[in-house]
Amino acid sequence: MIFHRHLRTLVPCLHRQFSVSTRCLEVRPITKLPPRIQPNYTKSRHGEIELQWPAGSRPRNIMFVKKPGVQVTRDALVEFAEHITTTYPETNIILEPTVAASLHHRLSKPVYTLPPPNQHSSPFPFTQSPDARTPYHFATDEPTSPPISPASPDPTQPFFARNLYQTYADAVITLGGDGTILYAASLFSTTTSVPPFLTFAMGTLGFLGTHKYSTYESAFRSLYTAATASSAPLQVLPRHRLSAVSSSGHQLNAMNELTLHRGQTPHLAHIDIEVNGHLLTEAVADGIIISTPTGSTAYSLSSGGCILHPSVGSLLLTPICPRSLSFRPLVLPRDVEILVRLSRRSRGNGVEVSVDGRTWGTMAVGEEVRVRLEGGGGHALGTGEIENSGIGMLGIPCVKREGGEDAWVGGLNRLLKFNYAFGEEME
Amino acid sequence: MIFHRHLRTLVPCLHRQFSVSTRCLEVRPITKLPPRIQPNYTKSRHGEIELQWPAGSRPRNIMFVKKPGVQVTRDALVEFAEHITTTYPETNIILEPTVAASLHHRLSKPVYTLPPPNQHSSPFPFTQSPDARTPYHFATDEPTSPPISPASPDPTQPFFARNLYQTYADAVITLGGDGTILYAASLFSTTTSVPPFLTFAMGTLGFLGTHKYSTYESAFRSLYTAATASSAPLQVLPRHRLSAVSSSGHQLNAMNELTLHRGQTPHLAHIDIEVNGHLLTEAVADGIIISTPTGSTAYSLSSGGCILHPSVGSLLLTPICPRSLSFRPLVLPRDVEILVRLSRRSRGNGVEVSVDGRTWGTMAVGEEVRVRLEGGGGHALGTGEIENSGIGMLGIPCVKREGGEDAWVGGLNRLLKFNYAFGEEME
Amino acid sequence: MIFHRHLRTLVPCLHRQFSVSTRCLEVRPITKLPPRIQPNYTKSRHGEIELQWPAGSRPRNIMFVKKPGVQVTRDALVEFAEHITTTYPETNIILEPTVAASLHHRLSKPVYTLPPPNQHSSPFPFTQSPDARTPYHFATDEPTSPPISPASPDPTQPFFARNLYQTYADAVITLGGDGTILYAASLFSTTTSVPPFLTFAMGTLGFLGTHKYSTYESAFRSLYTAATASSAPLQVLPRHRLSAVSSSGHQLNAMNELTLHRGQTPHLAHIDIEVNGHLLTEAVADGIIISTPTGSTAYSLSSGGCILHPSVGSLLLTPICPRSLSFRPLVLPRDVEILVRLSRRSRGNGVEVSVDGRTWGTMAVGEEVRVRLEGGGGHALGTGEIENSGIGMLGIPCVKREGGEDAWVGGLNRLLKFNYAFGEEME
Amino acid sequence: MIFHRHLRTLVPCLHRQFSVSTRCLEVRPITKLPPRIQPNYTKSRHGEIELQWPAGSRPRNIMFVKKPGVQVTRDALVEFAEHITTTYPETNIILEPTVAASLHHRLSKPVYTLPPPNQHSSPFPFTQSPDARTPYHFATDEPTSPPISPASPDPTQPFFARNLYQTYADAVITLGGDGTILYAASLFSTTTSVPPFLTFAMGTLGFLGTHKYSTYESAFRSLYTAATASSAPLQVLPRHRLSAVSSSGHQLNAMNELTLHRGQTPHLAHIDIEVNGHLLTEAVADGIIISTPTGSTAYSLSSGGCILHPSVGSLLLTPICPRSLSFRPLVLPRDVEILVRLSRRSRGNGVEVSVDGRTWGTMAVGEEVRVRLEGGGGHALGTGEIENSGIGMLGIPCVKREGGEDAWVGGLNRLLKFNYAFGEEME
Repeated sequence: MIFHRHLRTLVPCLHRQFSVSTRCLEVRPITKLPPRIQPNYTKSRHGEIELQWPAGSRPRNIMFVKKPGVQVTRDALVEFAEHITTTYPETNIILEPTVAASLHHRLSKPVYTLPPPNQHSSPFPFTQSPDARTPYHFATDEPTSPPISPASPDPTQPFFARNLYQTYADAVITLGGDGTILYAASLFSTTTSVPPFLTFAMGTLGFLGTHKYSTYESAFRSLYTAATASSAPLQVLPRHRLSAVSSSGHQLNAMNELTLHRGQTPHLAHIDIEVNGHLLTEAVADGIIISTPTGSTAYSLSSGGCILHPSVGSLLLTPICPRSLSFRPLVLPRDVEILVRLSRRSRGNGVEVSVDGRTWGTMAVGEEVRVRLEGGGGHALGTGEIENSGIGMLGIPCVKREGGEDAWVGGLNRLLKFNYAFGEEME
Repeated sequence: MIFHRHLRTLVPCLHRQFSVSTRCLEVRPITKLPPRIQPNYTKSRHGEIELQWPAGSRPRNIMFVKKPGVQVTRDALVEFAEHITTTYPETNIILEPTVAASLHHRLSKPVYTLPPPNQHSSPFPFTQSPDARTPYHFATDEPTSPPISPASPDPTQPFFARNLYQTYADAVITLGGDGTILYAASLFSTTTSVPPFLTFAMGTLGFLGTHKYSTYESAFRSLYTAATASSAPLQVLPRHRLSAVSSSGHQLNAMNELTLHRGQTPHLAHIDIEVNGHLLTEAVADGIIISTPTGSTAYSLSSGGCILHPSVGSLLLTPICPRSLSFRPLVLPRDVEILVRLSRRSRGNGVEVSVDGRTWGTMAVGEEVRVRLEGGGGHALGTGEIENSGIGMLGIPCVKREGGEDAWVGGLNRLLKFNYAFGEEME
Repeated sequence: MIFHRHLRTLVPCLHRQFSVSTRCLEVRPITKLPPRIQPNYTKSRHGEIELQWPAGSRPRNIMFVKKPGVQVTRDALVEFAEHITTTYPETNIILEPTVAASLHHRLSKPVYTLPPPNQHSSPFPFTQSPDARTPYHFATDEPTSPPISPASPDPTQPFFARNLYQTYADAVITLGGDGTILYAASLFSTTTSVPPFLTFAMGTLGFLGTHKYSTYESAFRSLYTAATASSAPLQVLPRHRLSAVSSSGHQLNAMNELTLHRGQTPHLAHIDIEVNGHLLTEAVADGIIISTPTGSTAYSLSSGGCILHPSVGSLLLTPICPRSLSFRPLVLPRDVEILVRLSRRSRGNGVEVSVDGRTWGTMAVGEEVRVRLEGGGGHALGTGEIENSGIGMLGIPCVKREGGEDAWVGGLNRLLKFNYAFGEEME
Repeated sequence: MIFHRHLRTLVPCLHRQFSVSTRCLEVRPITKLPPRIQPNYTKSRHGEIELQWPAGSRPRNIMFVKKPGVQVTRDALVEFAEHITTTYPETNIILEPTVAASLHHRLSKPVYTLPPPNQHSSPFPFTQSPDARTPYHFATDEPTSPPISPASPDPTQPFFARNLYQTYADAVITLGGDGTILYAASLFSTTTSVPPFLTFAMGTLGFLGTHKYSTYESAFRSLYTAATASSAPLQVLPRHRLSAVSSSGHQLNAMNELTLHRGQTPHLAHIDIEVNGHLLTEAVADGIIISTPTGSTAYSLSSGGCILHPSVGSLLLTPICPRSLSFRPLVLPRDVEILVRLSRRSRGNGVEVSVDGRTWGTMAVGEEVRVRLEGGGGHALGTGEIENSGIGMLGIPCVKREGGEDAWVGGLNRLLKFNYAFGEEME
């Protein structure tokens, strides 16, 4: 098979593909999967967003994303995937290409992944699609090589073009910390309809990861059986994303933030900021951050921002080292459009624009980016209008821990050590 | 008349009450007015909240509140009130008692005010009502005596009991800065249905005051004729209030904030904070502030808080000098209930609780206050549900300047001097 | 003995004073001790301040101050004191009255303490002295009663008048955390010549406590034998104090800070601040803090201040919740005099003035306090001039840990958890 | 003349050099001047640093540095220089090359400047010296071309090599704001003995500029006649500089700060910080700033630093967007050595190192910079030791305004607008 030949350099066992090893046949193109099933979302009487699969449907294509370079997530993925394919025989497993290459031999069923990129001469139809240009080499998982990035994938990588994950994945399971969730979210940065995320913190506690790995069987069952007669309603936390459009028309959705920074230029950046067409200010600063509530505990916090509960439907504008001492972080309502433009008073070669910690490009004088909260603009989250306005406005729908308790409230104290005074030792 | 006798000490001209001076008869009890007319509020296609009077109705009872001790607001009130009563003959003017006493002789029509308090033997029915206990001596306006408070009424005064203004005033006009609006709002701190506010900044620019005094004729006309066939829609900004309930059952609404502070006690306060029943943290600090978006530019800002656009439907929790350096201001969604309780680990005599800068009381160990955003709890502002859920959730409905532009965005830069660098002189 | 009669209510065993119990005779008045020996301080070639006892002299009167209400410090005191009096027979132990009362029966030698206050008819000469008014009931140590203050003595207590400790104590040993050192320092707040402090952290690590209790034998030996031919030089860290003088002429020295705060008044305080006679600003704020370097990690840090190394010879001026967002903490040189005066623009009943967390009094409009760094004004610490200008300028001379390493630098990272990111759990 | 030929392209009038225009001969090489005279500095009884010229000497070589691209400083320079050369006939004027080229024709006496760089074949001895490599094209002053930098010279320029200004200039006069003083200081960044600075603020008020231009005659006379029998003592403020040495041995002195910043790298920098050889912390941040007291009102202030009086002999360490919320700015004593090293835990291509806003280079993993306060290390400023330890420790000796008042204290309130509340309009 041509497809397998392609993987030869990545997957050692493929050298033996003409042998009788059936294991080696288990990496298949994602396009062989049945199309994605989108769940319905409704709002309960108590204001909770609840997920249910369409009548008669169940999720079939389960995608895993894991923290790279760590044995514990590797083993967990194998165990979890085996559990799923054994217990729910209709399901299929989607992995990233390198993860598929390194782990498929430990799984008893075939795994699905993206086709190789740039295979222009391939006879396979899917390689002809624009999606074939999707990066492929991300998140290496070679067990023998030292991890490039112990905590998260390399943020200097360019962004993904629109890819096939969003066409096929019914649900996404992440194994790792906040960085892994952020990375998984980046795989869907060009789609407005993100599959539900079921996230597991593996050892470390983060702001985002909610489920303990030890509960994986019941957590998946709840997702699988969501809203059947016999199951409890499955509550999701819609993590608002921001939607950014550059003056050249490129668009990206971000889970955390969009950042403008002077980068290497020693000059302060002069950035005009407009809110709904009205000039707010000309920020003179190292840069500015436009953050979602989820991103309020990331870069913005280091830069002096406040902390937004993930259910707050607002954008947070935080200056980075501003010249004015009174330029405090601003919280703006959901329905605004923020425009940032590099002022003609700026010197130097432009400012760096990055999204979720990854470089997006350089903004020259006069160029601009428009930012909205995804689903903002009158089609507000948290209202009764969800059913009518489509699920795109749900951002990243993250399955809540059972009971629907507010894990954020409970975890913040511990994460930020509010109750550890300075000058007091912790036992 | 007994009512007039009561005013004798306040109003010099009453000494001549047996003369023929008709002017001296022009202070009348507010209870003689026709009952209040409540406007309807609807939401436009663009998400704006619009006010209209019921079919065939117009506002009749216009209340004025002005900054005390300043000649310019005194003259403006006289001019404005004369304009209204002349142009719209059906209207009546409501003033605070001391303002009525000092200014009624300059007005050509009778003015209405609260009856004197504690007049238990009075034959007038209204003095028998519980409202008769309403404070009366607030906001003195004796031109010859030095003002107790040049900028705003004395915040050490106790809070108003439920009063008659909310039973009769169709609309409230404020003449003065943010302090005057805050004071006027405090007159309605015990009602859930506040009449529309039409606010005029007199010289100084504040965060809240939107109309220029020079436009008073057209501004009032727009309010008077709201939503008739010939008028433009009248947009209002609903300034969210917070609603606080103490463990002893007392309730108050606040436009700016509720504050807990250790006061004179040298010990740090230990305050348990719960959000929707989940323990957020035990704050160890000088105190904490729970603020509305409107209040985010008041005390909270001095204490390190961020700035919330007035349309953001959130509560802001800001610690005051916390022992933990990582306890940053938190923005919580509209539908939460925040409970603050003085922890048993607190020493000293309790913490001071104040609302909008006025002392509410002292909280002892074990006591608590519950705080919600008014109209929160699933009945969210800014959605299509306004019509059904009543107008109480509109907080303080403030008439926007014509054109509906976002004065907040335009004014913030100037108010906070974002564009004045340190080390740079202002011309 | 009349002296013993006085203690009857405090010391149970005194009820048996007519018995043969010699133990009950072991609390003696401090005035029976030989007078204090003051060490000499010189500056080494490397800029270190070194302590040596005068030729032929050794410290004889060793004072202990311990954290109240904790068994571990009680036992440590007994063990340590027994070690001293056994090993160095010339030495005597000074305890606070209540500690003496509760612990003297566990010690094999007499202990010395302050005489009872207000014993005007006493035949004992020392009770006639003005020092007899010294508070006596401080730092209760009744093992059976619950401690009033588990962490530190009650800061609502008034300040000590000039007392006899400073006339007799050759050295002070503290057993407890930063609060205990701060309390011990307060016993010398009215003298300019403080005996050397040897401080032991008992379990908790603070900013100030440097020696581990397990090293008490060698640590005391180093102090006892300081600068004899056979001993290493004994380095001390002079903890600068600030010296405050009120407009009524009262003076106090503070180890941490002087604070002005509006207390219960809801109005912002208006405080004129002058530096060397030049108006710096009129601070409009909840209050201000004038802090020593030692105090920079106390209240000032909670209020947004920076952290000063204890060897920095500067004063730190930190506003508390200032109205101006650009009023940042200021670091002023050693030789300035800061004057703070309650401005006539202040309303309310004055501001609370406290020193090292204890209330000093209320400052009325027009009143002022002048603050200097002790020994500032041209007689700078850390120069070659120490020998000539007297030892008063050494503040609190704290014995450094052997080796003279900079414990502050090493401890800061751990105390402030610089290397714990938010969002990362600590094991 | 070869020297004039070199200037042909810069100075239009040189095209006429074969004409009889004597004016065109008035740019001379600085090496023709008599050698520099260094003043003596003594400390007064009140702790003031006072300047006096050696007996029988007066300053002869007066250097001007002016803000570029502004007509008012151009005219002021001409007026001031004419005044000096007319009133004090022994004096000579030194200008930067491009300023000399554009202004010499307006002056009645020759001006002196640096020789052209890289003139290897020149017969003039000074062009053979290493100083010939000194940049030459800085601070263009072409009146017809738009200024590259309206406020200050281009900070992207590389640093000056050791140059001839410090060999010849007896005093430096700056005409412009803080940026001009900073630029003039950079011309002496490689010498330890900086001539006295006499600085004039031209219109704008900065933190550093002290004299009004209108007083230029008396201000210069005070400097010229310093410490003769008939003159008042001339007080100087020694602006401490920091001295930085890279691991490759390069050294620079900075008036404001040394900055490490991640630049374009999206990863947080990991920077090990040692103080006197003890590890303080591993900073995980966008970067760090090590600032002098003078620099505390520059970049450090934007990044959350406190403000140090210029007489404070300390270094300020301020993190830029640190991951730890408790990493507050630190003030360290004068005699420390701070070592910053890029940790091996850092990813990316190193951090940018800049000095006084100009790029110094890129620090790779494992490389380090050592920073001290110039003259620190036991030879402290502000003590009686000045006479013995040489004048290098004076940093930039800035002539104080007459009367010796503390302009900093008086100016800070105005510069930082402490007394402008937010929400209050300034008239």
